[in-house]
Amino acid sequence: MESLALPVDPVVRSLQIELSPPSLENPRADIDTLLGAVEGQTGLADLCGDLEVIREVPCVLRSQDWKVGVCLRGSRLVRVASGSSRPLGLAVDLGTTKVAGYLVDLESGRNLASLGTVNPQVSMGEDIIARMARAKDSPADAARLQELVVGALNRLAGDLSAEVRADPRDVVEVVVAGNTAMHHLLLKLPVEQLAMSPYVPALRESFEVRAREIGLGIAPGAYVHLLPNIGGFVGGDHVAFLLATRLDRTDGVALALDIGTNTEVCLAVDGALTSLSCASGPAFEGSHIRHGMSASHGAIEHVRVEDGNVEYETVGGAVPVGICGAGLLEVAAQLLSAGVLDRKGRLGDHPRVRLRDGEQEFVIAETDGSAGMPAVTITQRDIQQLQLAKGAIRAGIRVLLEASGRTEEEISQVVIAGGFGTYLDVGSAVAIGMLPSIPLERYRQVGNAAGVGASMALVSRAARAEARRIAGSVRHIELATAPRFMQVFAQSMFLG
Amino acid sequence: MESLALPVDPVVRSLQIELSPPSLENPRADIDTLLGAVEGQTGLADLCGDLEVIREVPCVLRSQDWKVGVCLRGSRLVRVASGSSRPLGLAVDLGTTKVAGYLVDLESGRNLASLGTVNPQVSMGEDIIARMARAKDSPADAARLQELVVGALNRLAGDLSAEVRADPRDVVEVVVAGNTAMHHLLLKLPVEQLAMSPYVPALRESFEVRAREIGLGIAPGAYVHLLPNIGGFVGGDHVAFLLATRLDRTDGVALALDIGTNTEVCLAVDGALTSLSCASGPAFEGSHIRHGMSASHGAIEHVRVEDGNVEYETVGGAVPVGICGAGLLEVAAQLLSAGVLDRKGRLGDHPRVRLRDGEQEFVIAETDGSAGMPAVTITQRDIQQLQLAKGAIRAGIRVLLEASGRTEEEISQVVIAGGFGTYLDVGSAVAIGMLPSIPLERYRQVGNAAGVGASMALVSRAARAEARRIAGSVRHIELATAPRFMQVFAQSMFLG
Repeated sequence: MESLALPVDPVVRSLQIELSPPSLENPRADIDTLLGAVEGQTGLADLCGDLEVIREVPCVLRSQDWKVGVCLRGSRLVRVASGSSRPLGLAVDLGTTKVAGYLVDLESGRNLASLGTVNPQVSMGEDIIARMARAKDSPADAARLQELVVGALNRLAGDLSAEVRADPRDVVEVVVAGNTAMHHLLLKLPVEQLAMSPYVPALRESFEVRAREIGLGIAPGAYVHLLPNIGGFVGGDHVAFLLATRLDRTDGVALALDIGTNTEVCLAVDGALTSLSCASGPAFEGSHIRHGMSASHGAIEHVRVEDGNVEYETVGGAVPVGICGAGLLEVAAQLLSAGVLDRKGRLGDHPRVRLRDGEQEFVIAETDGSAGMPAVTITQRDIQQLQLAKGAIRAGIRVLLEASGRTEEEISQVVIAGGFGTYLDVGSAVAIGMLPSIPLERYRQVGNAAGVGASMALVSRAARAEARRIAGSVRHIELATAPRFMQVFAQSMFLG
Repeated sequence: MESLALPVDPVVRSLQIELSPPSLENPRADIDTLLGAVEGQTGLADLCGDLEVIREVPCVLRSQDWKVGVCLRGSRLVRVASGSSRPLGLAVDLGTTKVAGYLVDLESGRNLASLGTVNPQVSMGEDIIARMARAKDSPADAARLQELVVGALNRLAGDLSAEVRADPRDVVEVVVAGNTAMHHLLLKLPVEQLAMSPYVPALRESFEVRAREIGLGIAPGAYVHLLPNIGGFVGGDHVAFLLATRLDRTDGVALALDIGTNTEVCLAVDGALTSLSCASGPAFEGSHIRHGMSASHGAIEHVRVEDGNVEYETVGGAVPVGICGAGLLEVAAQLLSAGVLDRKGRLGDHPRVRLRDGEQEFVIAETDGSAGMPAVTITQRDIQQLQLAKGAIRAGIRVLLEASGRTEEEISQVVIAGGFGTYLDVGSAVAIGMLPSIPLERYRQVGNAAGVGASMALVSRAARAEARRIAGSVRHIELATAPRFMQVFAQSMFLG
C-alpha cells in the first residue's frame, strides 16, 4: 500500500543530560537532580518518574559518568540509560491466529524490522468464542490466556530487538491493535458481558497501561497504547486498518475487508463508515482443512484444472506438503469452473475424485512414494469449511449494503487487507462468490493495513487522535442481530 | 498535643453514580459509560482508570444494580465499589523500630483507630546502618527488607480496618512518614549512595506510587504518598513532625526532638530551621539492656532511690518483669543524685550493688521466688548504653547550637515527641544531662507528632504543599561531618 507521509511526532521523546556529581557541600539527591535538569532543558514542570525507572537512576548515573540518555513520555520518565541507546517502538497487530510485530525507530519513524508469529492462545481455543468461554469460566484460564499472548509479545520484542542489535529495554512504547476480544484478553478485562447479548465491551476507548503491569519486559517505564475498539466484535485492529486505508476520505461507495479468522468488513458511502465483523474461521489459515497449512515452504498456492489435468505451484517450488488458503480458493474456483463442483459445493465425477475414508476428495497432488509424501487433496468437508468462511464474508458484505440501501454494482473500489488478503487470487474469490462480481480492476490488495495503522499510531500523536475520531464515528452493526442474517448467510454459502 | 484545625481537603474524593444498563440499541461499553458519568458529574475531563480498578467495573456495576460509589484521585479512578462503602485513609509513622498506623475517615477527617507494631525489619538489623548494609550487599535481602515492612503495613491496614468493621480495600490513600533509610527500603530504592559519603538520598522530593506496586493490599487504585526527605539521615518523619509542631512559626530560639532509634533534633531561630539526626540507638526501646523491655505490662517505669530504699512502679501495677526506657532514665538520675553513680557512669558502693557474672549491677526489684520472677537490675553495660544514647542526643543539640551561634540558656521552649518522648520524665533526662539544664516549664511533651503530621497530610492537600515547603527550607547538618563532633560527643557522654 502507499506509504502515508506522516510527521514523526511520537509520544515518547529522548534527550541527553549531563550532570555534575553530588558532594558534601552539595549533597543533592540523584533523582531530584536528574528531574530538575530535564525540567530545565525541556521547560516542563512537575516531572515524575515511575518507581521502576527511578530505582535505576543512581546506578546508571554513576556507571555512565553522569551523562545519560533520558526518554520522556509527557511529563513521565520512561527510561534512563546510556546516552547511545536509541528509543524504539513496537507496533503489534494482535490477531486471533497470528501476531505481527513491527519494530520502529522512534526518532526517524523508520520501520527497522518485522516479524510474524502464531498467537499461542490457539492452544486454548481456535476462535474468540472458545477463548472467551475459557476466560469466563476460569480465572486461571483467563490468566493463562494473558500469559500466552504476553509471552508471544515478549518473544517478538526480543527477536526484533536482536535483529537490529538492540536491547528489548530500548523499546519505550508499544501500540497494540487487536479485535475487542484479543484486547480484553490481553488486559485480562472481564469478557462475560462481551460474550452475551447485548455484547458490550468492558472498555471501548483507547487505553494506556504500563507495559510491565501486563508483564512486558521492555523499558521499565514503557507504556502500551491500545487503540480504541468500535464495538463488541470490531476492535482496534479495524480502527488501525481504517487509519491506514483512510476509507473515510473516499468518495462514492467503497468496501474494505480485513480477512482473517475474524473478517472485518467496512462499507464507506461518501466517507460515512459502517462496519461489522464476521466469523470467517481459520480455514484460510489452514485449520480444519485436511491438508491445510500456512503459506509456507511446500504449500500449494496456485492450481489450474484443465480437462483432466491438474497443474500446481508450491511456495518455494518445493515438493507439495499441503495447501494454503490461497490454493484452497483457487482449486475451488477451478473445480467450479470445470464443473467438478456444483453450486451447493458437492464434488461430482472426475478421474481425480475418489472416495477415501467414506468421504469424496479431489486429488491435487498424487502420492509421491520416492519423496515419502502423501497425496494432497481437497475433501468434501474442506469445501464445506470454505463455504462457511466465504458465506460469512459475503453475508457481511450483503448486510452492509442492505443497511445502507446500496448495491454491489455501485461499489467503486474494494480494499483487501490481512495476511491472507495479500496473497489471495481475487479472480478466484470472485469466481466462488466470496467477493462481489464487479470488475477486477476495482480491487486493491494492500497487505497488513492494520500493522501499518498501528505503526502510524506509534510514531504520530496526530494518528492516535485520528484513530479515536474514527473509532467514535464508525457505525457498528452487530451481525448476529442483523435482520434476515440467517437467510443472507444461507444464500451466501452457494458457490459462484 | 493540641489538635490543629485543618480544612478537610483530601486528595481522594468520593461520589455516588447511577447508570442505566446497556441494551442492544445502546450497547455502551461499561467503563466508558462510568467514566462519562463521572465526568458529567464532576466537570473533569480525560478521566482515566487504573487497569486493576477498571477490571472490576463490569462485575461491580452488575452486582450493585448499576448504582456505585466511586473514589477519584485527581482524574484517576481509585475505586469502584458498593455505594455504602466509606473512603478511608491510612497514615503511617514508619520508624526504625516501631511502626504506628492511624486510620482516618477521609470524608470527616476524623481519626477512627490507631495501632502500633514492631518494624519486622529489626530481625535483619536493629539500626539503619545494619539494614542498609544488608540491602546494599544482596538484592534478595533488599527485597526481603521491603517485604517485611510491607507485610507490617498490610497487617496494620487489616487490623485497623477490622477494628472499625471496614474492608482494607476501603483504604484509598496512604501517607508514609519515615526516615530516609526507611523510605528507601520501603521503595526498594538503592541505598549504596546513602550509606557512604556524601550520603545522598536517591530521592528527596515527595513521591507517589501505586500502593499495589509496592505490595500493599488495599484499594486496587490507591496511592501511597511518601512525605519528602530533608537529607541522607533526616527524612519524611521529621518533616511530618515539623508540620505538626510548626516550629517554623515560633519566635526566638526553640528546640524540638523526636526521640527514637534515630533521634531527629531541630533548632529554630526565629523560625529558621536547622536539623540533624543522631543515632541514639534502641536502648530507650529496651534493646541491648539486660532487663530492658517496651513500656508494656510489668515494665518498671518509675523508680525512687532514697537512702538504702528503692521504690518502683510498674505499668499496670503488675509484678515487675523488666524495665522500660523511661524507667531506665529515672533510675540513672536517682542513682546519680544518690551518689551511687558517678559522672563517668561507674556504679559505686551501695547495699543494692552486687557483682554478677563479672559485672556490677544495681538491683531494682529483688527476686520474687513465689511469683517465679528473677530480679530486675540495671548493669554497668546498661548504663554505658544509656550514656551512648544520651550522649548522641546531647551532642546533636550542642552541634546545632554551635552552628547557629546560640547557647542553651537562650532556648525558650523545647518540644519533645516520639513514643518514648511522651513517657520520659523530663526532670530525669535533664538530671543525667541528656537534655539542657533549663527550667522544666520550657519543656513540652507532644506525643507522636510525626503521626499527627502524617495524618494532616492525609486529609489536607494544603498540608502536603506545606510539607514540601518545609522540607525544602530546612538546613540540614550531617552530624558525622560536623566539625569537632567527636569531642562534643565524648563530652556529652558524661552524666549530669
